[in-house]
Amino acid sequence: MAYELFYWDGIPGRGEFVRLALEQAGADYIDVARTDGGMGRMMAMMKNKTARFAPFAPPFLKDGDVVVSHVANILLYLGGRLGLAPKDEAGRFEANGLQLTITDFVGEIHDVHHPLGVSLYYHEQKDEALRRAENFRDERLPKYLGYFEKHLSKNGEGQIQAVGDALTYVDLSLFQLLEGLRYAFPKVMQATEPDYPLLVALNAQVRELPRIKAYLASKRRLAFNEEGIFRHYPELDRSSG
Amino acid sequence: MAYELFYWDGIPGRGEFVRLALEQAGADYIDVARTDGGMGRMMAMMKNKTARFAPFAPPFLKDGDVVVSHVANILLYLGGRLGLAPKDEAGRFEANGLQLTITDFVGEIHDVHHPLGVSLYYHEQKDEALRRAENFRDERLPKYLGYFEKHLSKNGEGQIQAVGDALTYVDLSLFQLLEGLRYAFPKVMQATEPDYPLLVALNAQVRELPRIKAYLASKRRLAFNEEGIFRHYPELDRSSG
Repeated sequence: MAYELFYWDGIPGRGEFVRLALEQAGADYIDVARTDGGMGRMMAMMKNKTARFAPFAPPFLKDGDVVVSHVANILLYLGGRLGLAPKDEAGRFEANGLQLTITDFVGEIHDVHHPLGVSLYYHEQKDEALRRAENFRDERLPKYLGYFEKHLSKNGEGQIQAVGDALTYVDLSLFQLLEGLRYAFPKVMQATEPDYPLLVALNAQVRELPRIKAYLASKRRLAFNEEGIFRHYPELDRSSG
Repeated sequence: MAYELFYWDGIPGRGEFVRLALEQAGADYIDVARTDGGMGRMMAMMKNKTARFAPFAPPFLKDGDVVVSHVANILLYLGGRLGLAPKDEAGRFEANGLQLTITDFVGEIHDVHHPLGVSLYYHEQKDEALRRAENFRDERLPKYLGYFEKHLSKNGEGQIQAVGDALTYVDLSLFQLLEGLRYAFPKVMQATEPDYPLLVALNAQVRELPRIKAYLASKRRLAFNEEGIFRHYPELDRSSG
């Protein structure tokens, strides 16, 4: 039976971290909200009054009777099944910890354009976004990217992988993270990418995986835009140089 | 060997969700940062340049050679070992999804007093905090609490438990969530608690668990204060009635 992924149509957003794992594994899956009547089904799943578990928000995954919410939790669930997780227990918890650090970073990236909360539009919090963006560019972005770069530097010689000696879902998520940052903050990233050679190399490596390459060229891959997590607002992007 | 918990001294914060699980299980653990030289050890763990995995931020748990970061990940790791997680796989992923929803909510609670980021003091972003607090009180708080209340309402008759038919770490975390909200937003909570009878009942039930009761009365339990996640700033607290 095909996995069913539930996520907002029209944006890569948080759902994309899950899609990349499904695509790399060549898994059979349905991107439900992009099918006829799919949005209605997604909303009904969240409002379900009888199912034991109804997710708070997309993305979530349905695998038969099992419903799994949250990107890191979905990837933990899929990781072993799709051959994209470490085989040992310590490695699995390391991968999940790294994925949750990506989650934290993605949350902060989102909050740059929504510092006052998700219920207001960007134009209603633009001044606050300008202030938050400065702090993000100067402190948070280098802190997170520096952390991942240092982490990658500790792996075995010649290998660029986040956990163990094989590709995992964490590598795919780090690829997407860099893609999103390049879209949202092109000036910042152009200036700062030389500081993170391993992250850049990992990104290039993932992009050339045959299934990922085919996926990126397909219509299934959604373009970044100003409705998602990674938004390009030129006024928030500035190289400090 | 005792579990070693690493978290900032002086605040309950995110570490408290882990402490409650360790305490309820009667587990042997060391709250490292509260021991002599412990803060130095915690910082060294994060800056470790040779260990394969160094956590991005506290809290993290050390169990022999295994280091696990992030509250939800730590509770997932400890849950089975301490008898505080569902036995079936679907239940474990449900518990983790609920815990990650708590994580999201805790992040938003924190951001009420830090809408522009963690690098600035509260007094530097007080105007923005006032705006975010209004949105939090009117929309986000009822949305999250309503979600958990509805979730609890679906469990078996007469039982107040988040997952399955036994106490799990999710119940302990929901207890702590309500405690923190009562501290930070006493007026809001006084006005709104009648809307969430099951969350209130679960809180009372957890408080009476013998080990939790003893823990709450001990010096190990840290008081809420204005350095942590749950801060009481009277200007951010207001009942809408």
